[in-house]
Amino acid sequence: MKRSVLKFGGSSVADFLKIKNISEHLKDRIEQDEQLVVVVSAMGKTTDNLLQSVNELTKRPNDKDLAMLLTTGEQQTISFLSMALNDLDVKAKPLTGYQAGIETIGKHLKSKISSIKTEVFNDLFEQHDIVIVAGFQGFNKEGELTTLGRGGSDTTAVAIASALQCPCEIYTDVTGVFSTDPRIFPEAKRWDTVSFEEMMEMAALGAGVLETRSVELANNNNIPIYLAKTLSTEKGTWIVPNDQILERKAVTGVALDKEMAHVTITFPHESQDFLKQLFVKLEEAEINIDMISHIQNQDGLQLSFTFKESDERDLTGLFDSLKADYPDLYVKIETTYCKVSVIGAGMRDMTGIASKIFKTLLDASIPFYQVTTSEISVSYVIDVENGESATRLLCQTFNL
Amino acid sequence: MKRSVLKFGGSSVADFLKIKNISEHLKDRIEQDEQLVVVVSAMGKTTDNLLQSVNELTKRPNDKDLAMLLTTGEQQTISFLSMALNDLDVKAKPLTGYQAGIETIGKHLKSKISSIKTEVFNDLFEQHDIVIVAGFQGFNKEGELTTLGRGGSDTTAVAIASALQCPCEIYTDVTGVFSTDPRIFPEAKRWDTVSFEEMMEMAALGAGVLETRSVELANNNNIPIYLAKTLSTEKGTWIVPNDQILERKAVTGVALDKEMAHVTITFPHESQDFLKQLFVKLEEAEINIDMISHIQNQDGLQLSFTFKESDERDLTGLFDSLKADYPDLYVKIETTYCKVSVIGAGMRDMTGIASKIFKTLLDASIPFYQVTTSEISVSYVIDVENGESATRLLCQTFNL
Repeated sequence: MKRSVLKFGGSSVADFLKIKNISEHLKDRIEQDEQLVVVVSAMGKTTDNLLQSVNELTKRPNDKDLAMLLTTGEQQTISFLSMALNDLDVKAKPLTGYQAGIETIGKHLKSKISSIKTEVFNDLFEQHDIVIVAGFQGFNKEGELTTLGRGGSDTTAVAIASALQCPCEIYTDVTGVFSTDPRIFPEAKRWDTVSFEEMMEMAALGAGVLETRSVELANNNNIPIYLAKTLSTEKGTWIVPNDQILERKAVTGVALDKEMAHVTITFPHESQDFLKQLFVKLEEAEINIDMISHIQNQDGLQLSFTFKESDERDLTGLFDSLKADYPDLYVKIETTYCKVSVIGAGMRDMTGIASKIFKTLLDASIPFYQVTTSEISVSYVIDVENGESATRLLCQTFNL
Repeated sequence: MKRSVLKFGGSSVADFLKIKNISEHLKDRIEQDEQLVVVVSAMGKTTDNLLQSVNELTKRPNDKDLAMLLTTGEQQTISFLSMALNDLDVKAKPLTGYQAGIETIGKHLKSKISSIKTEVFNDLFEQHDIVIVAGFQGFNKEGELTTLGRGGSDTTAVAIASALQCPCEIYTDVTGVFSTDPRIFPEAKRWDTVSFEEMMEMAALGAGVLETRSVELANNNNIPIYLAKTLSTEKGTWIVPNDQILERKAVTGVALDKEMAHVTITFPHESQDFLKQLFVKLEEAEINIDMISHIQNQDGLQLSFTFKESDERDLTGLFDSLKADYPDLYVKIETTYCKVSVIGAGMRDMTGIASKIFKTLLDASIPFYQVTTSEISVSYVIDVENGESATRLLCQTFNL
């Protein structure tokens, strides 16, 4: 019997009508002799609303309590979806992250899935047609509830598909993977297939359709992902292993990341100890950094890197604690920048891509502050107000 | 070190200000070298609101999904209370029913606690001052989430106190146990102590301060309960083993139960099989019945009993299914009755109580439809509109 994991995000289950429509669709699928695992997020703005209400109670909630609170969001969705399926006489079994055996490691609000028990699913499919799993959540070795961080429901879905060795379908507001955000460049192309490699770059560079971690996980386990619009007849995009793509596009897309911030650090001394401390602390705080530029000369250290805007509070706290040991440290955090990236797996075989990008930005008088390149992408830090126009210009340059 | 279980009901934790005030009080208590287990219900009207929203999704939600949904209510309270305590530097550990090891048996929405692991608490008190437990919930042998039914948080508190062999304090809107509901009879007396026996009758007969099951549990385990108003300096009532009360009151109180309904069944045949089926089905549906009157003669069976108004839907369904086998069955359900009861452990040694009650009702021309007596109580089914006046008159008769 064919088995698939389907994931519906928060806006796809935002109200009861949507939940009922999804239930009808799921019933159709199981009537075609499929076994389905359905992963859902919290309904609509539930998570944001919970976070906002916490703000009225305390300015410094601790992570473990916050994780326990947030997990109620998806628990409500799985209950409602199970009721709606039950109304259609579909045998569904709702499971919290704990009940699904989703064990995690790491910080309470940024956990990573360490293991999933496949027996749970195999056993349940003997009596049920659909197993519903609360996305975004799990439990740690101490038995405490944890969350996987924003976008974590995708990871839940891919991790379950990996454990069960079946394909994963992710349904959102977007009809698949585009060469760039269609809200910025309406002529953007939708791709039928892209490779994991390209998708990983797109995700890491802020394309926002799928979290990096879930694409990475699918890539490691060779699990194909279908990305499409919830309950739409429009075709979506298959994300497949690199070797399944015959013709490589030179440039697949342009990604714009506005959710990033930039920090410049000046330290007028020999910096070995300082750097060691900084990176230990960054690792402890689980802050991912990107686009590092590093200059050390007789005047001391000049270091710049970009990071997720959502980590700004943690990073500010981290630098405050470092200043106690290093009073000469000068730190400047900028949140008015964005990152525009050009991505394509074919890039490594092509020449002239970087120079085309330079020329495009220079012709439009768009200043840039940092540049990094990977095998299949080139990224520029520019002012946030130039982000959308740069994206459109680069799409035109590469005929996307 | 002194250990106590404290329970705060839904209205006591209805908003963040109340949660903060309770946290301050708990901090004071632990600074006096106490170890506390704090059991909380869902905030304010959360459970009702969840049930109401379900109503928009489906008219026939199944119990297991409903239990999973409702348990999110208390899970949110324990998260918020833990955050508030954390703000005051109190080391608190929030636990869901599952995490607290509260195993249950029976129907998903009317479960009974079958076991509690005391090791969980002993271990946690090595690192924490307060263990917060989500009331009203547990899990069954299948690992499914369950609820204990309305008022179940009291049972959670008493069950934990029984397992830990420590006293239990239950905080609500009411300042202890009164001779009758002070909203009906403002001159009602508050008792300093009452016996388990009296309290059990009061609870069973609808006094509404404490659920029967929790008093029964305290009685079985000899756990004293203190019942008082949340964060009030007014004295509450201690509910203690029967032998700790020296002077017995003849009549302790008058209880009015408006949440009851009444059914009359007419079955014009020999009724052995029918009755057997009826009682099997009642047990399966876990519907508690009370005040049974039963007449069997050559015309067939006449059976009346009272039941909780909240079971009306289940009972109607039950009779509908019986009518398939017994088409002659005639059933009349009345929800316009109420039950007024006079309670007192001293009653068994006293005479003339029953006749005083008869006289009071007759003098006031209040008709009654059924009467039952126990060792320490006498109950009358009367019209709901006479309930409050009968309560007041009986309080005057017995000088309460």
